[in-house]
Amino acid sequence: MSLLLDKIDSPADLRDLSPEELEQLATEIREELVNTIQGIGGGGHLASNLGVVELTLALHRQFDSPRDRMLWDVSHQVYVHKMVTGRRGQMETIRQYQGLSGFADRNESPHDLFGAGHAGTSISAATGMAAARDLRGEDHHVIAVIGDGAMTAGMAFEGLNHAGHLGTNLIVILNDNSMSISPNVGALSRNVNKLRIEPHYRRFKQEIEGRIDGMVEQFPIGRNLARDVWQGAQRVQSSMRDLIVPASFWEQFGFDYYGPIDGHNLGELEATLSAVKKVRGKPVLLHILTNKGHGIPEAAADPVKSHSGTFWLKKPPAPDAPKAPPTYSQVFANAVGELIEQDPRVVAITAAMLEGTGLAATQKEHPERVFDVGIAEQHGVTFAAGLATQGMRPIAAIYSTFLQRGFDSIVHDIVVQKLPVIFALDRAGFVGDDGKTHQGFIDTSYLRCLPNMVVSAPKDEAELRDLLATAVAHDTPFSVRYPRGAGPGVPTDQPMKKIPVGQSELLRDGRDITLIGFGASVIECVKAADLLALEGIDARVINARFAKPLDEDAILAAARETGGIITAEENVRAGGFGEAVLAVLADNGLPETLLLNLTMPDDIVDHGPQKVYRGVYDLDGDGIARRAMEVLKDRGAERKESLATA
Amino acid sequence: MSLLLDKIDSPADLRDLSPEELEQLATEIREELVNTIQGIGGGGHLASNLGVVELTLALHRQFDSPRDRMLWDVSHQVYVHKMVTGRRGQMETIRQYQGLSGFADRNESPHDLFGAGHAGTSISAATGMAAARDLRGEDHHVIAVIGDGAMTAGMAFEGLNHAGHLGTNLIVILNDNSMSISPNVGALSRNVNKLRIEPHYRRFKQEIEGRIDGMVEQFPIGRNLARDVWQGAQRVQSSMRDLIVPASFWEQFGFDYYGPIDGHNLGELEATLSAVKKVRGKPVLLHILTNKGHGIPEAAADPVKSHSGTFWLKKPPAPDAPKAPPTYSQVFANAVGELIEQDPRVVAITAAMLEGTGLAATQKEHPERVFDVGIAEQHGVTFAAGLATQGMRPIAAIYSTFLQRGFDSIVHDIVVQKLPVIFALDRAGFVGDDGKTHQGFIDTSYLRCLPNMVVSAPKDEAELRDLLATAVAHDTPFSVRYPRGAGPGVPTDQPMKKIPVGQSELLRDGRDITLIGFGASVIECVKAADLLALEGIDARVINARFAKPLDEDAILAAARETGGIITAEENVRAGGFGEAVLAVLADNGLPETLLLNLTMPDDIVDHGPQKVYRGVYDLDGDGIARRAMEVLKDRGAERKESLATA
Repeated sequence: MSLLLDKIDSPADLRDLSPEELEQLATEIREELVNTIQGIGGGGHLASNLGVVELTLALHRQFDSPRDRMLWDVSHQVYVHKMVTGRRGQMETIRQYQGLSGFADRNESPHDLFGAGHAGTSISAATGMAAARDLRGEDHHVIAVIGDGAMTAGMAFEGLNHAGHLGTNLIVILNDNSMSISPNVGALSRNVNKLRIEPHYRRFKQEIEGRIDGMVEQFPIGRNLARDVWQGAQRVQSSMRDLIVPASFWEQFGFDYYGPIDGHNLGELEATLSAVKKVRGKPVLLHILTNKGHGIPEAAADPVKSHSGTFWLKKPPAPDAPKAPPTYSQVFANAVGELIEQDPRVVAITAAMLEGTGLAATQKEHPERVFDVGIAEQHGVTFAAGLATQGMRPIAAIYSTFLQRGFDSIVHDIVVQKLPVIFALDRAGFVGDDGKTHQGFIDTSYLRCLPNMVVSAPKDEAELRDLLATAVAHDTPFSVRYPRGAGPGVPTDQPMKKIPVGQSELLRDGRDITLIGFGASVIECVKAADLLALEGIDARVINARFAKPLDEDAILAAARETGGIITAEENVRAGGFGEAVLAVLADNGLPETLLLNLTMPDDIVDHGPQKVYRGVYDLDGDGIARRAMEVLKDRGAERKESLATA
Repeated sequence: MSLLLDKIDSPADLRDLSPEELEQLATEIREELVNTIQGIGGGGHLASNLGVVELTLALHRQFDSPRDRMLWDVSHQVYVHKMVTGRRGQMETIRQYQGLSGFADRNESPHDLFGAGHAGTSISAATGMAAARDLRGEDHHVIAVIGDGAMTAGMAFEGLNHAGHLGTNLIVILNDNSMSISPNVGALSRNVNKLRIEPHYRRFKQEIEGRIDGMVEQFPIGRNLARDVWQGAQRVQSSMRDLIVPASFWEQFGFDYYGPIDGHNLGELEATLSAVKKVRGKPVLLHILTNKGHGIPEAAADPVKSHSGTFWLKKPPAPDAPKAPPTYSQVFANAVGELIEQDPRVVAITAAMLEGTGLAATQKEHPERVFDVGIAEQHGVTFAAGLATQGMRPIAAIYSTFLQRGFDSIVHDIVVQKLPVIFALDRAGFVGDDGKTHQGFIDTSYLRCLPNMVVSAPKDEAELRDLLATAVAHDTPFSVRYPRGAGPGVPTDQPMKKIPVGQSELLRDGRDITLIGFGASVIECVKAADLLALEGIDARVINARFAKPLDEDAILAAARETGGIITAEENVRAGGFGEAVLAVLADNGLPETLLLNLTMPDDIVDHGPQKVYRGVYDLDGDGIARRAMEVLKDRGAERKESLATA
């Protein structure tokens, strides 16, 4: 059967379609979205894309992309946008190694005006684009589409505030599906929900206005009174719009508010977009109501699960299949539950990542001890600081990449005051399919430069538990980083035990070379040592555990006793663990014993499996072994050379 | 004459004073504030402290500090608080080396519950304290005092949103003086200003309610109509509070709103505080109106100038006195003005620091090309990203310490997308009197770890101009850091010239040792070389200019040709310039030529003159020379030793 979709190569092809054809197209897109996501293994942001099918079509019909600038906040909802801007043929590669990105990407298409992955940036970027347009006297539109969850980010408010101040032409579309990844947090969301009943307010307003007018007409006697009532009514009328309280919220930022309208009604969407694009000299907030997963009953029924894929099409595991090891997130969340039970000081904090951090389960057990602060990393970190001043031991569980947003709070509120807050950095190192905006590639650098901060990483799941117990018993800021996904699968049923802060672990003795791993790289160093043994090379393997403070004794002993040191870590080199080791060696007169720092590249790493990138950058067992052999060969050659010239 | 102030050793001493005595005390405090600030040379935050005299007294009478937790946002307004909490005798040491801090400091007094220096943190910290109290079943009060300027920070909104969600007992006092350091930016501030006329709304509301009641009573005939009107009136009445639109803004976050009241009327303040502390199960926002500089006519007349001291008591410079060299900020702002005139792509952005960055003058000349985004570093940086996508060359002028708050925007919006945004980091390195919350001690580390980021620092004012011109001509993210205050005073009247990116400058040749300075340390390296020459040591001096990319050729030549390398920079060692140099040396088989990395300490540096701290940490000419001699002596001894054992 031929599809309407087959005829859509660019937004222009959407414009001649009839309302019936558009409805059909929306259906085709939904089916293809499910198939695409199913085709790449069931991952990818399904529910949010199902929710914006009509919005995307309406925007591309009413506006002229890329002349009109269309920005998508977080941009996990751009699959439909990609399909109608010439990338439908590559959709099967989405989120795959060297395939399309799962987010907007300026390198991918001129229709992707601004890349994203973190929430709340679109209004700021759009305001910048609008300011550039105004300076140049150009007249295109700038449109930012932002979800109600992303709107809780402080920077979204900063953007609203500045855009309203500038009074520029800008259209912000609030895509309100009354939930972000986790159900929305915050007083504000309750008030956004109020807006859903705004049509009732509007009707009431018309009604009361009519009655007051009627009253004045019916009682022409008592002129003074009538005049007073009339004047009062006028004033009521002019203030009546403020009865619509939630709307006025946005108007106080200097925006004209429109809505809420049904975001799945194409006719209503297009009519409203057509109206708001005529507003001049003022930014506009258009409030649309959508349902995550709309049009696919299974997805709509559980938008939390279908946020990341076609869960209902997943085959159940065969009854005799080996049980998959738990993810680091699950191990973390279980450990937090145990710590909460053991120690009344322990509380956990997440920034809208209850599911992602694993803490959803912990919160069910301990609802008062697990705080979800919303997409608000700055607040979350300083909230933890406040708790810590009162003798609590807060564990802030924030992905490595998202903690970047709490950086000043870490420095200004926690490090300067030396408060015992624990940072649990999930998704540290290669992040996999989410790609460049989500890589956990710099946290060791941005934390190691901070005084009094402990920087640690476990070699496996059991050690994650031990480091968390260590952190809770420690009196200064403490960070623990761990990778996305599952670890080696070691048992986690032992009681947690404290590790002396700054103490490394000798995993394997050896004389020819020392491999020091930090975090996820430790197990790769062990694999490398096995490979090296096959070549007759006797490698020592050290599990660093801490990048700060460093185990100087173990490092210096390795420098003196073995043929040199290779460090391995999933962080960039600048400021990372490897440079720290080098500095210690230099301070002790042994800098030449540093053979190599194996690290993530000084470059932006794209999406694709962690395993693939570990291979690309020599951070897997094979790569570490190969580089070790190369460097030993070079050093051997040098040594021979220097002996020859001696 | 004996003062009432002499009898105030702690907050308890305030409670027995009569209204007349309190008025007198307020006057005495104001006079002493002016004298104190005049006594320390006219610096310090005068106007904001004059504005909170009555508030501080009222808070300490109505609440029981430190049992009740009192938090001061930014906390530059805590001088009065310090005076009445036992620190009056040390006020003459405020902001002086080893004296009292100019901000709240947990190490200084149990009455200082939370240190600050950056804006917008108090609501988050207070919410954390309130949550800890609730978990423990305690019942003290938590109070956050925040200015209207600080309220524009995104994290303040995040804090409001979460506090409203928790529905905990918390009192937020919005100290509205209708200006932050620069006049307030943002649509929101216009609406806060509306609240100033809220009493009129309130009167109108009572009036219209009365009239509707009256109407119904006067027209008992036409029962149906009367009933309808009555019901309508009831509905109007219940919604009437929403007529007070700005109040409803705060109520939408889940706060009870009170105010606005006169923040200089002690009686009204105490009565209202006494009322709001009875509110339970809900946070309260109390809106008070104050005037910066209140009570001292000279200060009130120019609150911008008196923000930082007793400007009107300053003696004019003697007519024949040598003209003081301009500050780096002034040189920067002038250069930006020239660049704006030369290049239509150039715009400048500041985050509520028009005065501090020098850009106030530039904005006067080019109002459309200089954007003040308010206290909103995240937005400011991403706003710049938006501008850059449109071919503009935005220069984001943000202090080193405040740019920490824009870190994720730098990474996620600029570095990942490789956008040509220029970061001008004022106050890099030792910050002087503002102390630990303001040190520019880690920017080299947090920027050097970022791919595609140029990290640079000029040796003097003229080179700052050249680096800015270089940055504008460059196509990737570019940062320039420079210190607080004046530079060496070199002429800045030459046209700006571009410097090849990554090229250092040889300032002085030499063979015995190489001193490589980065930024403000370059001139100290020159001084050190002069001192070393007196000792017969021939030092090479290199002005690095760039920490990324490094001038590897110059570094390797110095390693090969001289007796070793000392680096000097005002940044911590971890991830800084010195570690970068060491890594280059290691990669080229010359790591042993790194003699020393002189850096700021891996510790929190307190307030006090830059000059003093440069001395303490061997980052002045004397210190660098002494450390160079020590290390050369050690190396000489080692060499002799190794020759002896050979």
